[in-house]
Amino acid sequence: MNVELDFDKMGGLIPAVVQDLSTGDVLMVGFMNPPALLRTLQGGYVTFFSRTRNELWTKGESSGNRLRLISCQTDCDHDTLLLQVQIEGAGVVCHQGTRSCFTKPLPFQAADSPVETQPAEAR
Amino acid sequence: MNVELDFDKMGGLIPAVVQDLSTGDVLMVGFMNPPALLRTLQGGYVTFFSRTRNELWTKGESSGNRLRLISCQTDCDHDTLLLQVQIEGAGVVCHQGTRSCFTKPLPFQAADSPVETQPAEAR
Repeated sequence: MNVELDFDKMGGLIPAVVQDLSTGDVLMVGFMNPPALLRTLQGGYVTFFSRTRNELWTKGESSGNRLRLISCQTDCDHDTLLLQVQIEGAGVVCHQGTRSCFTKPLPFQAADSPVETQPAEAR
Repeated sequence: MNVELDFDKMGGLIPAVVQDLSTGDVLMVGFMNPPALLRTLQGGYVTFFSRTRNELWTKGESSGNRLRLISCQTDCDHDTLLLQVQIEGAGVVCHQGTRSCFTKPLPFQAADSPVETQPAEAR
């Protein structure tokens, strides 16, 4: 490939963000080692390296909900990937039966509105 | 927080995907340790842990292009975050002057079109 990726920051892995091309939804984040990336780029379907099973894992291989690669970009540091995909099969990515894996909101304190600059006479 | 996050898979860090709420663009991926997440959730602006500088880093603190948190979700495994934000300041996230850090396409071999099931009489 033309771009040299940096697998060293994470001990041989880079995170890969999967985005649904049709909706813009972020579906999941997986990790790739060089063989997983090579299989993805050569086959056109997203293959990760499973950290828990210690093996390559083509997403959707058994369920049919494969992730067909439409575009692949790396970032300024060459240590992350953004994969835009079309979901095949039933269109479900998460093993819990939802389209996206991101389904659990965390509560947070929203920042105040930006401070408006006061006109000089009001200072 | 209500959701217990899993920081153990990456030695105390979790990846955080930053998405522009207005466009759906994926802007960058950073990493958070528990103090970075706490500051983000309490202050409403995205703070990462810098792996190279080994310190907390509120994105845009010096440039003014801070990332105002609009929604925060974790995934099914509780080991990744999706942060939807509004960019303040000049609206530039990448230090190379682009809105998103993902600007470098990788070439790949697109998958063939899915095989259509043939009608029975044509088999």
